[in-house]
Amino acid sequence: MSIVDSLIAPTGTLLDAVDSPINLRHLDLAHMEQLARELRETIIATVAETGGHLAPSLGVVELTLALHYVFDTPRDRLIWDVGHQAYAHKLITGRRDRFRTLRCYKGISGFPKRSESDYDTVETGHSSTSVSHGLGMAAAKAIQGDQAKVVAVIGDGSMTAGMAFEGLNHAGDLGRDLIVVLNDNEMSISKNVGALSSFLSRKMTGKMVRVLRDHIEERLLALSSVGENILTVLRKSEESIKGFFTPGMLFEALKFKYIGPIPGHELGDLIATLENVRDHNHGPVLVHVITTKGKGYAPAETRPGDYHGIDPFDVATGLPKKNPLAPASYTKVFGDTLCRLARQDQRLVAITAAMPGGTGLLPFAAEFPDRFFDVGIAEQHAVSFAAGLALEGMRPVFAVYSSFMQRALDQLIHDVCLPNLPVTIALDRSGVVGPDGPTHHGVFDLSFLRFIPNLTVMAPKDENELRHMLFTAVNHDGPVVVRYPRGSGEGVALDDSFRQLDIGKGELLRPGRDVLLLPVGNRVFAALAAANRLAESGIDAAVVNPRFIHPLDSELVTTWAAQTGRVVTIEDNCILGGFGSGVLQLLNERGLLLPCVILGHPDHFVEHGPQNVLWADSGIDADGIVRSVQALLRSKT
Amino acid sequence: MSIVDSLIAPTGTLLDAVDSPINLRHLDLAHMEQLARELRETIIATVAETGGHLAPSLGVVELTLALHYVFDTPRDRLIWDVGHQAYAHKLITGRRDRFRTLRCYKGISGFPKRSESDYDTVETGHSSTSVSHGLGMAAAKAIQGDQAKVVAVIGDGSMTAGMAFEGLNHAGDLGRDLIVVLNDNEMSISKNVGALSSFLSRKMTGKMVRVLRDHIEERLLALSSVGENILTVLRKSEESIKGFFTPGMLFEALKFKYIGPIPGHELGDLIATLENVRDHNHGPVLVHVITTKGKGYAPAETRPGDYHGIDPFDVATGLPKKNPLAPASYTKVFGDTLCRLARQDQRLVAITAAMPGGTGLLPFAAEFPDRFFDVGIAEQHAVSFAAGLALEGMRPVFAVYSSFMQRALDQLIHDVCLPNLPVTIALDRSGVVGPDGPTHHGVFDLSFLRFIPNLTVMAPKDENELRHMLFTAVNHDGPVVVRYPRGSGEGVALDDSFRQLDIGKGELLRPGRDVLLLPVGNRVFAALAAANRLAESGIDAAVVNPRFIHPLDSELVTTWAAQTGRVVTIEDNCILGGFGSGVLQLLNERGLLLPCVILGHPDHFVEHGPQNVLWADSGIDADGIVRSVQALLRSKT
Repeated sequence: MSIVDSLIAPTGTLLDAVDSPINLRHLDLAHMEQLARELRETIIATVAETGGHLAPSLGVVELTLALHYVFDTPRDRLIWDVGHQAYAHKLITGRRDRFRTLRCYKGISGFPKRSESDYDTVETGHSSTSVSHGLGMAAAKAIQGDQAKVVAVIGDGSMTAGMAFEGLNHAGDLGRDLIVVLNDNEMSISKNVGALSSFLSRKMTGKMVRVLRDHIEERLLALSSVGENILTVLRKSEESIKGFFTPGMLFEALKFKYIGPIPGHELGDLIATLENVRDHNHGPVLVHVITTKGKGYAPAETRPGDYHGIDPFDVATGLPKKNPLAPASYTKVFGDTLCRLARQDQRLVAITAAMPGGTGLLPFAAEFPDRFFDVGIAEQHAVSFAAGLALEGMRPVFAVYSSFMQRALDQLIHDVCLPNLPVTIALDRSGVVGPDGPTHHGVFDLSFLRFIPNLTVMAPKDENELRHMLFTAVNHDGPVVVRYPRGSGEGVALDDSFRQLDIGKGELLRPGRDVLLLPVGNRVFAALAAANRLAESGIDAAVVNPRFIHPLDSELVTTWAAQTGRVVTIEDNCILGGFGSGVLQLLNERGLLLPCVILGHPDHFVEHGPQNVLWADSGIDADGIVRSVQALLRSKT
Repeated sequence: MSIVDSLIAPTGTLLDAVDSPINLRHLDLAHMEQLARELRETIIATVAETGGHLAPSLGVVELTLALHYVFDTPRDRLIWDVGHQAYAHKLITGRRDRFRTLRCYKGISGFPKRSESDYDTVETGHSSTSVSHGLGMAAAKAIQGDQAKVVAVIGDGSMTAGMAFEGLNHAGDLGRDLIVVLNDNEMSISKNVGALSSFLSRKMTGKMVRVLRDHIEERLLALSSVGENILTVLRKSEESIKGFFTPGMLFEALKFKYIGPIPGHELGDLIATLENVRDHNHGPVLVHVITTKGKGYAPAETRPGDYHGIDPFDVATGLPKKNPLAPASYTKVFGDTLCRLARQDQRLVAITAAMPGGTGLLPFAAEFPDRFFDVGIAEQHAVSFAAGLALEGMRPVFAVYSSFMQRALDQLIHDVCLPNLPVTIALDRSGVVGPDGPTHHGVFDLSFLRFIPNLTVMAPKDENELRHMLFTAVNHDGPVVVRYPRGSGEGVALDDSFRQLDIGKGELLRPGRDVLLLPVGNRVFAALAAANRLAESGIDAAVVNPRFIHPLDSELVTTWAAQTGRVVTIEDNCILGGFGSGVLQLLNERGLLLPCVILGHPDHFVEHGPQNVLWADSGIDADGIVRSVQALLRSKT
């Protein structure tokens, strides 16, 4: 019985016999190719059920197999940048049986996670960290005299982030053994932008080659013995000069050895190249691999942007299994509203950091191409670029996910709030985001925003209020963050016209005698539901929608706090340092020593799972609010 | 009477007659050179009195004159990256008379500031923002149809930051008119690191040129009619190939037109080049200018690192006018301690982001060159690089200024705290830093750190406790921030051996009946002094040094809070979201409804001035604490 036969499980699939990459290393090319096919089928079938990052994972099936075949993982360290492409990696590293629980509550994560497997070297989720991680590991191994290899796989989109450049720049300087695999699909989440991207693809056909040719020609012509035919030769060698120039040039300039480009779906080529790199190269090496995002699933190959991160879908048609009755998402309402505002206000411009689809800006980009800027995965630049626009009288709106805004805190403080510029940050995906888990939950923003001088922070209770807040924000002469959650709106009607809200003024939604509920943003409807349920048991809860987290509506809050004598704050943010902590500071400052309960996410990282489950876990759904109010009223204070 | 004669003021200096750049535009080259000399003299004489960024400003005197001569400032926008080189700019843009108040309380800022002058286009202080700012301005001008030019002046050190790369990458893609002046002195704050730096300086002498030459030779030899002498020609042209390759290549690759290098102290060359750029170039242009940091003052030219930012000094000798009796700084104690710890612990490595001197790491770098990493101005990479080191069993310590740590919040959350890695952040310059002002004050860190799960945040009351905290930090199996202030220690004796502190445990420094004082870090001695003064008026204050901001010592704090019935927290941090807000959350959670006063910096940006003045302004010095306690005791609550 051959090794392969012994590997093949009773079900007859090869994948069922792969418990770890060690099994791979006995396979021949034909069986590896079979395994690649099986991996694709499993990934497509599973993601169709669970949702997830389909196109990125389909693009690196062969690369995953080749890397684990060639390198001695987990002793050799393999790092997946972002980590949204690691499904094949998960399937062949002992998580085949649990793969159907992908991104489900208590199931396996959609990203690498050290607690799941020794093959997952680091927690990831945000882009462009892999070179830094890898270089740190390589530096440690050099100090320790450990010969194990370190391989970082990074996409061309992730390369646009300054952090990747910082890592490459340091790696080239340090000279440690580090293998960077550039997974180039000419598309990260959406079409790449930036000069770098065109540099990688355009093969230097333009001015540069001409300049170099002219330059050499001039030198040759200066010598009389050299005639026309040499110029002919030179012209013929133009193609090879082009080939030399790019795309390795940039990496060679950063002192990386450049190898490639390699076709990323040819297992034989991949394995041969990686073996060569493993055995013969020292110092920093960049292996340029060309892949097709969504490879092997026609709808994903055709529209890789739509299949980057996708909700459950029908495999046959590729169509999402969406609830057709679900209200429009906050994201969509944001995008539509911005278009409407931009029609009225020539100053309005929109910025995204490589997420035009995710942030709802595609309609804006189509309608106002000259006022739309996709800056690449570059949140730091995005914020200061917005500052530059604002300095010249424009009204920039930067739409960004909450957890990615963590990348631009300094730029927000230093470049926007210190000079008090009218920049609006549309903070999408605030609060828990669901299946993407702890790297993507936006549960810290209220804590890292509410202390910044000059910054107005608001959160709408529903999609209609979001519209008025956006209108208010772009007309405010200072920086504003509007924070809203992932997913469907509340299904409320949208007002025809926009209303300018008073900065720092909330609204009383329901008077009450026994307790004041202070819910932020998407917690308002939960608090209203809780108030209704409490009323049934004779508890009369006031509900105030503060609208503003900074500055707080001190009058409204203190009035109703004093009137009810008890306060419960509710936020889809961590408990520490957030809205509730601000309310405590306000009450304390006013000498209102009242019993308060601060509801929010606890002082640990929140795992992945459906939003409503996570809200319930943290006690910030209607049930949790009811329980907390009842407990508060039972206590004697 | 000539224009120059009319310009020359009764004092006989040209500078005295320059009220704005408009005056410059009438001068001939000889007078411009005279003005450059006068500017240098004024800058040296003033900084000798006030302290400041001497070497950077001396390096760009001619560049400043040339830019204002050629461009129609302030209509054309001039942006100084970091802004620490803008003294000549300030002197010729209407601030000559106030220049002696440089960096003094209520005097002019050491950085550009829009409220001071229309010629200051943006507030700055942190590095590598100018390309983003400039591109935003250029994009706005393109939309508005405004033909004014935008010029960003950025140092080669600032170019190592990822943010600058993000800006260049977007600028090359967008193609708007933008002039970037690369002020290349092969040294930013200290000697530059990174592959980019060597790329700029090494002129591609190495492998690359050989590879290209071999490549072309091969093609030529393939043709039989081509003989040996052509190879000779080619070999001769090697020099010019080198010249072609660099340093423009990298910028050309990012679609910038490259011009240079230009000698940065030759006014004639500078003016001619800039005029040419102004009149004939469109799209993104990079002008590479070579300058000498500290130019014109021998001590600064010789040791530009020491004269980057300098305290008052004697012009004749160049020696600092330091108080010889001042205790060692926290920074120095940190650096010495880290060396001692590293002698005992092979796992310990140190990281700086281009501040080996400022962070006190020079002794470490000298003693442990293989365990020391200067990553360039790259805080994001520094933190994730540290994570990589920690993942492989090392104990990295990243020493960084508080305000620059704002650049790496995401990396701290995502790459260090989520995986719970033993990375120590030595957070220098926490609290107000004095004359550098709002861009450099570290008054937000407690607010942006205390909510991060898994992160231990501590602050020592003196330099001796700093040593024990560092020992504790590097031996703790999780992430730690140790926060300490700029300037001299308290002058206490240093213990011979290190002590492991209990995580989350504070210390009672003084029992008391009437009020609990809870001071953080450098506020502990002020609180003790206040307690002594209060005792004289019969008020018995307890003083607890919490040591830990996260996790808080809930037992110690609540015990003494309950015992005294009143709490005053004191922190060199903003009031919102900081330590005091954490204490309020703790007391609230425990149902201790006590009158509390939260002392810290108010909800606006704190201006520049001596630390003790700023502490007094915010009421967090001993006087302020006494006043607050007295007021609290007078109130009836």
